[in-house]
Amino acid sequence: MALWYEEKFDDKARYSLRVERTVFDECSEFQHIQIVDTAAYGRALVIDDIFMTSDRDEFFYHEMLVHPALVTAPSVERVLIIGGGDGGTAREVLRHSEVKEVIMVEIDGTVVDACKKHMPGLGAWTDPRLQVRIDDGISFVKNAEVAPFDVVFLDGTDPVGPGKGLFNSDFYRGVKRVLKPAGLFALQSESPFYMGDVFLDIQRRLGEIFSAVTPYFGPVPIYASGSWSWTCAGDAIDLAAMDAVRLEVVERDCKYYNRDIHRAALALPNYLRQVLGRR
Amino acid sequence: MALWYEEKFDDKARYSLRVERTVFDECSEFQHIQIVDTAAYGRALVIDDIFMTSDRDEFFYHEMLVHPALVTAPSVERVLIIGGGDGGTAREVLRHSEVKEVIMVEIDGTVVDACKKHMPGLGAWTDPRLQVRIDDGISFVKNAEVAPFDVVFLDGTDPVGPGKGLFNSDFYRGVKRVLKPAGLFALQSESPFYMGDVFLDIQRRLGEIFSAVTPYFGPVPIYASGSWSWTCAGDAIDLAAMDAVRLEVVERDCKYYNRDIHRAALALPNYLRQVLGRR
Repeated sequence: MALWYEEKFDDKARYSLRVERTVFDECSEFQHIQIVDTAAYGRALVIDDIFMTSDRDEFFYHEMLVHPALVTAPSVERVLIIGGGDGGTAREVLRHSEVKEVIMVEIDGTVVDACKKHMPGLGAWTDPRLQVRIDDGISFVKNAEVAPFDVVFLDGTDPVGPGKGLFNSDFYRGVKRVLKPAGLFALQSESPFYMGDVFLDIQRRLGEIFSAVTPYFGPVPIYASGSWSWTCAGDAIDLAAMDAVRLEVVERDCKYYNRDIHRAALALPNYLRQVLGRR
Repeated sequence: MALWYEEKFDDKARYSLRVERTVFDECSEFQHIQIVDTAAYGRALVIDDIFMTSDRDEFFYHEMLVHPALVTAPSVERVLIIGGGDGGTAREVLRHSEVKEVIMVEIDGTVVDACKKHMPGLGAWTDPRLQVRIDDGISFVKNAEVAPFDVVFLDGTDPVGPGKGLFNSDFYRGVKRVLKPAGLFALQSESPFYMGDVFLDIQRRLGEIFSAVTPYFGPVPIYASGSWSWTCAGDAIDLAAMDAVRLEVVERDCKYYNRDIHRAALALPNYLRQVLGRR
């Protein structure tokens, strides 16, 4: 008997992967967390019935969330990650030797524990520069008595469940509060085509708080429609200004990202030029 | 009761779209052809249980198959399309006023008739420059007594069913036979990630016949993994040499394609640089 794991992304489309076995299945205080072995993508993390990442395709998402910001930020010494419980974002951040401290604030300790145990390749958990705090990222950026960060990453779920509060203007203002004046905020910003409304809402809200907002694009095969976006926001960002030294290290180690991909990801399709009012 | 149309792409992944109604369902001599109204993508063409194109996302595929070649070919007067029965490729080709004659050789007249009637937005069927021949494209390129073409497009199905013979070296040699010495051959070349083996096989076979082979990349939301590739092959191709006049017209009319997207599509991810042995 073949077992199929069906993602009901919305009431219009479903995506199913054949599953060889379930290795973890638990409801935390916040969400339903499953780790399954799929035939197509290897081991995969599923939260509230949506595929989050897989051993085979995770590099697209994590490299593209992290490196465009870290290769162009004026400084990258202190980095904050909100969410990112699977560890992949921290792992990519820690490839940069200029990074001195990474604070990861993940609301759900169950995700961290499950991924450490069952998807260890995603993390760089033993790196002494990484501090993991099991805490609410929204309160953290609102209340933390912390010195400003050079770069903040938001690596959350879709705008449902505990991730919902990470898609609003209050949270974005909190991020600005903990960011240096020349700092960068990078986040996943959903599918520009399949979830165009959410993508545009994120652009609009960020535009009210930061003076420069730059979306960029790439594939994430396991996500709905396979075509994804991330966005960098800040008051002094220039995603074209790549640091040659930082670039060299990540280009050598990455599976997807390199300087050509970095530039290419910034190209705006005609249908987005129009709705974003650019050129 | 909600009806779901489930694509069994392979034995590892399935993709389902909610269907409001079936508007066409017929088995031709060659294949099973269905046209359905989906909630997510509007009207969609399904051949042998695989989604081929949809009203809502067809522009990604057709613009990216056609314009990189037509904007860079030395001449575009005479164009051959093998397959392309839904009409979308011919429609994009005919946007170029320098094109004087388009011969479309589609094996299955049922696809043409069904799409003319039920998906009319895909075609430019009344353009006097277009000749549709219901014939086998493989024999056509092998036997036709025709003057050479400036550009040949292959717009076939996946390498199963009647499309299988379009993915081999004999067919590619036939294409070269009907192509001008400086002509371009452009084709869809499957998902570079999800169907990496087929993608690489196409690159390899083309490389044995043409002296320059350039793959390029973009999204097609309705296809497996959402991340697709096309390839241009020829003996004298330079996909960076965009013709300013031709570019201007298609940039104005396209929904996805523009000069930034053209350049961006050529960027090779690290995992492909490695397997293709480039840089």
